[in-house]
Amino acid sequence: MDVAIVGVTGYSGTVLYTLLAKHPAIDQINLYGHQDEGKDGEVRYLDQLIPGFHGQHIRIQKFDPQQIMANNTAVFFATSAGVSSQLAGDFIDADFPVVDLSGDYRLPDPAEYEKWYHKPAAPAEHLQKATYSLADFYQPGTSYIANPGCYATATLLGLAPMVQNDLIDPDTIVVDAKSGTSGAGKKLTGITHFTEASDNLQLYGLNTHKHIPEIVAQLKKWNDAVNAIQFSTTLLPLTTGLMASIYAKVKPGVDQAQLMAAFNQDYADSTFVNVLDGTTPDLKEVVGTNNCDIGVVYNPVTQTVMVISVIDNLMKGAAGQAVQNFNQLMGLAETTGLPTLPAFV
Amino acid sequence: MDVAIVGVTGYSGTVLYTLLAKHPAIDQINLYGHQDEGKDGEVRYLDQLIPGFHGQHIRIQKFDPQQIMANNTAVFFATSAGVSSQLAGDFIDADFPVVDLSGDYRLPDPAEYEKWYHKPAAPAEHLQKATYSLADFYQPGTSYIANPGCYATATLLGLAPMVQNDLIDPDTIVVDAKSGTSGAGKKLTGITHFTEASDNLQLYGLNTHKHIPEIVAQLKKWNDAVNAIQFSTTLLPLTTGLMASIYAKVKPGVDQAQLMAAFNQDYADSTFVNVLDGTTPDLKEVVGTNNCDIGVVYNPVTQTVMVISVIDNLMKGAAGQAVQNFNQLMGLAETTGLPTLPAFV
Amino acid sequence: MDVAIVGVTGYSGTVLYTLLAKHPAIDQINLYGHQDEGKDGEVRYLDQLIPGFHGQHIRIQKFDPQQIMANNTAVFFATSAGVSSQLAGDFIDADFPVVDLSGDYRLPDPAEYEKWYHKPAAPAEHLQKATYSLADFYQPGTSYIANPGCYATATLLGLAPMVQNDLIDPDTIVVDAKSGTSGAGKKLTGITHFTEASDNLQLYGLNTHKHIPEIVAQLKKWNDAVNAIQFSTTLLPLTTGLMASIYAKVKPGVDQAQLMAAFNQDYADSTFVNVLDGTTPDLKEVVGTNNCDIGVVYNPVTQTVMVISVIDNLMKGAAGQAVQNFNQLMGLAETTGLPTLPAFV
Amino acid sequence: MDVAIVGVTGYSGTVLYTLLAKHPAIDQINLYGHQDEGKDGEVRYLDQLIPGFHGQHIRIQKFDPQQIMANNTAVFFATSAGVSSQLAGDFIDADFPVVDLSGDYRLPDPAEYEKWYHKPAAPAEHLQKATYSLADFYQPGTSYIANPGCYATATLLGLAPMVQNDLIDPDTIVVDAKSGTSGAGKKLTGITHFTEASDNLQLYGLNTHKHIPEIVAQLKKWNDAVNAIQFSTTLLPLTTGLMASIYAKVKPGVDQAQLMAAFNQDYADSTFVNVLDGTTPDLKEVVGTNNCDIGVVYNPVTQTVMVISVIDNLMKGAAGQAVQNFNQLMGLAETTGLPTLPAFV
Repeated sequence: MDVAIVGVTGYSGTVLYTLLAKHPAIDQINLYGHQDEGKDGEVRYLDQLIPGFHGQHIRIQKFDPQQIMANNTAVFFATSAGVSSQLAGDFIDADFPVVDLSGDYRLPDPAEYEKWYHKPAAPAEHLQKATYSLADFYQPGTSYIANPGCYATATLLGLAPMVQNDLIDPDTIVVDAKSGTSGAGKKLTGITHFTEASDNLQLYGLNTHKHIPEIVAQLKKWNDAVNAIQFSTTLLPLTTGLMASIYAKVKPGVDQAQLMAAFNQDYADSTFVNVLDGTTPDLKEVVGTNNCDIGVVYNPVTQTVMVISVIDNLMKGAAGQAVQNFNQLMGLAETTGLPTLPAFV
Repeated sequence: MDVAIVGVTGYSGTVLYTLLAKHPAIDQINLYGHQDEGKDGEVRYLDQLIPGFHGQHIRIQKFDPQQIMANNTAVFFATSAGVSSQLAGDFIDADFPVVDLSGDYRLPDPAEYEKWYHKPAAPAEHLQKATYSLADFYQPGTSYIANPGCYATATLLGLAPMVQNDLIDPDTIVVDAKSGTSGAGKKLTGITHFTEASDNLQLYGLNTHKHIPEIVAQLKKWNDAVNAIQFSTTLLPLTTGLMASIYAKVKPGVDQAQLMAAFNQDYADSTFVNVLDGTTPDLKEVVGTNNCDIGVVYNPVTQTVMVISVIDNLMKGAAGQAVQNFNQLMGLAETTGLPTLPAFV
Repeated sequence: MDVAIVGVTGYSGTVLYTLLAKHPAIDQINLYGHQDEGKDGEVRYLDQLIPGFHGQHIRIQKFDPQQIMANNTAVFFATSAGVSSQLAGDFIDADFPVVDLSGDYRLPDPAEYEKWYHKPAAPAEHLQKATYSLADFYQPGTSYIANPGCYATATLLGLAPMVQNDLIDPDTIVVDAKSGTSGAGKKLTGITHFTEASDNLQLYGLNTHKHIPEIVAQLKKWNDAVNAIQFSTTLLPLTTGLMASIYAKVKPGVDQAQLMAAFNQDYADSTFVNVLDGTTPDLKEVVGTNNCDIGVVYNPVTQTVMVISVIDNLMKGAAGQAVQNFNQLMGLAETTGLPTLPAFV
Repeated sequence: MDVAIVGVTGYSGTVLYTLLAKHPAIDQINLYGHQDEGKDGEVRYLDQLIPGFHGQHIRIQKFDPQQIMANNTAVFFATSAGVSSQLAGDFIDADFPVVDLSGDYRLPDPAEYEKWYHKPAAPAEHLQKATYSLADFYQPGTSYIANPGCYATATLLGLAPMVQNDLIDPDTIVVDAKSGTSGAGKKLTGITHFTEASDNLQLYGLNTHKHIPEIVAQLKKWNDAVNAIQFSTTLLPLTTGLMASIYAKVKPGVDQAQLMAAFNQDYADSTFVNVLDGTTPDLKEVVGTNNCDIGVVYNPVTQTVMVISVIDNLMKGAAGQAVQNFNQLMGLAETTGLPTLPAFV
């Protein structure tokens, strides 16, 4: 199988490449770039663009939908929000398999998209042909996969068993999420300047983060009583990893045992989601993997449950989940080519 | 004025020394150590114990309460919980001025102390002679100051205006607190081993942290309706700084303007507590200072207020607040010798 | 093929496990521990010992040489210096394939070992049956491989082409080497306490580092004119990665072109050693790989060449090279199961 | 005394402000900005520009040489290379006291400046009226002080006793220098993007660094036999601090005792330069101070001395040394207002 990546030079795209390069069902990776093909007709190769990618002498080809569909079985868009929707139209019209890592097709309503993203939305008929797919709750849908955002993934996996089983008061959900800088991408910004970000914590996007509406929409699908969540994001002085610290009041009578039963049941067959038994996960134990490790601790004094959900934001939060969705879309085993042992040190 | 430090080689003690060394009202600092005087009668000096303390050739003297009281105007205990209560008895009996940075005299009830600290409590009559003093709300009391804990300081300063003015539902308080490793002290532990702590987040003491009872006790003094808080602590990959991210549902009708009014009024005369206007503070903007910077953001969608309160855990959270309390105890201007400009980079 | 690891819970052992778990020629990994089998007969499993190793429910068995040899094709010692020599005797006597990641068999002379390691040496007859094998210059030898040290690996790969081709003055070699904390292992020490190591540089082992004699011995094999090197090691505030910055005066008439020719020729057929063309490598471009990236820059003003050689200290500097040596010992392709694409972010 | 700062918003300028704000001989700090006064006539204040500078409500005034000279006793230029020389002319012509933190007047020869800086040099007659002043070797000169560069300071202080006393072979000097990111300033660049700089080492400016000519020129003043140095700079994953690791072959017969004698004699009366006795300094022991700590270790095996010289790059390497030079220029005690106790944690 040959597959295409558009946008390989971003952090998600680069990690995606390393996964696909080891994927046993993939013969060849073709690279396309709306910008990466070089200015003024300059020919560019992957090994020139990414330090350490010795031997990956693959040319970045000009973006051409027909050529991409002719030469590949599927395409991954590792492009930014606002870019994917400029590029994806022909693929949607052709029902060609796409996994889109951007946020452009996650929200079905154009008005909602424009409210949160402050950019023009894709056409409504295209949005309706996209399937928002949290891979660990994958359900067959259209051939266009809108891969969830990193914060959304950790938050939804941490909330799913409680929301699905109606164990918490839906008006009391608080998510204090923290992420490394790689989630902010390669673009140079003040808050990701080393001298500013090191030894620091910086909040950003409070109450306005783009992942809020996709989280609420998915929670609502599971339990119509959820209307909103209190959600904050804090930039950490580290590059990789994301922790969602989730709090909610439990419904009367719910206790630790009932909570654990719900989590263990939901994730009994999951390769990637690990429910810890009475402890809380460290961030680092998932870095380098497609895992989501979850700790669940009920506090009877406050009738509050705290759930800690950790992921590698570029793996489970982006490229890893994209491959997991791709595997399922292609009818492969969900786990094909995906790492579950952490890098650790 | 001559003052004494017991326990100068711990992180809080060392920072305390640097503050007192520049304090205009202090002539001489005398150092005493129950351990630091060296084994087998070995004579030890500060400049040998702390790298970079060139010229601070001050002998660590043997701990002797009578000699300390004879030669000093006040004493600072920068000793660990469980140690202060072994050393402080004579000083309390003599009503000698003490600022104790440990947790040994923060809880007035011995049983409460033993429940949270798992150590023998100081005698009840001694506990009653200690004043728990959040310095920015200082009220004259006994000559024995129990200096608040670092997490307690950031949390209480962030909650005070709302709790005192009854603006939030007291059953909905959630505190997601994060701190650098210096708060864990010099003792070598697995979670503070660099290879483990770097690039990582690690929760610890969930629902069992020693600062919980002192926070709740102080909140209760301000507003009897507070019974408990949901409180977590996460170890950050940085050495210095502490952020308390505080969430609560507001009382019906409370809005951003009312919240800001309460914060601005409470801290109108404060040198050290800065209420930001509509923004959230970065952790680093207080490191190196005795400041507490506070951001307040109300979310009308969830009727929840988020307060971000940041401090330098060794300054405002320990040595700086100790000097502030000392200043007030001695009748000096509260701000004497205390830095308010951040170190930054 | 079944293989054994002794000492899986150390950092090198854990990384070694992750490599062998993906190695296509290995069916099963058996774990043995002289300590890891638990105290008081407690049964211990890998997934209990290493956070995030979900599903690796492998029992740590008691160390028993005969059982190990009966049930495995080869054994890896990921044990500390001073420990391997206590355990390896039976394997050496039986000519059983061993890759030893410790320093115990790197120096052929017991007196030399005891001078640098301050521990009892293995018996001389055992030392003589061990082969010191820098894997990228592998030559078939005995079945006991003494895997090189991390600093030795980066330094030797950076010096080899110049020393072998007699391009530098052998009395002028200066190596300023820097490493992350994982090289210091899991043992808690003051210099690896996060609060001390973060935002810091700390020199250690100046002129006394154990890797000095193995470097000099290997250089001498290549060029008898080398007698000594000036060598320092600095602990970096990061966990993984090692850079050797190497300086030497060139022989009269040697220039950049001649230097590049020597490097390119030596490593023309190497999968893992990459000679950069006129640039210097960043440390991070090799982390997660078994690569060694090398930059070579001659300065005509000082007649000095600077070589920058970077490796992942736990991969090429320990577990990765061990697998490379194992592959060669077993007659497998040298590259089997070894990663060459960096983890990056 | 009133003093002026031009360029307060850069890292050096901000640190300079914090020093001058505590300086006992300074009544008022006036701020001027060629850019910082705001675009389109917008009025800007310090407390709006620097987070955490609560209460420093000082207006950034338009740059006007005559006004500055009329209202201040001296001026500090904390501006970039290429900017100072655009601004300084009137001050030089008037012999007005200036401490210039930029590199614009460090090299007396315009051609040399243009070769290394790739920018137009200041006029030769202005260059001749500037005094390059390594503050710990201060000699009265002109009223225009060219404050040394950070790398130059650490390197020169580490080499001075050996070069002045002719103890080393001048053709064998190797300096492997490392610095935190704050030295690279506030400008956003790829190598200082957090995701790139964290967990990484990156070389830059190899053999082309602007500080090379000022180091060589000063060494030559001390000892005409010095012609060149081999010099590299590596960017560290930390914000503040600089280490110069210096190597040289000693002259025949020179030993540790002779080296120590030279260092101890040169710095016997120095408040800020501390010669360690047989140990090597950690970087962190000088951060927050105007100190330079120096370790000296001779290796008889290689006849090579290694000197480790550490400074805070923004203090001793910029703003601290600027105040030290200012103190001397004004006839104040050299140490006035300068910290010598480290911040530590």
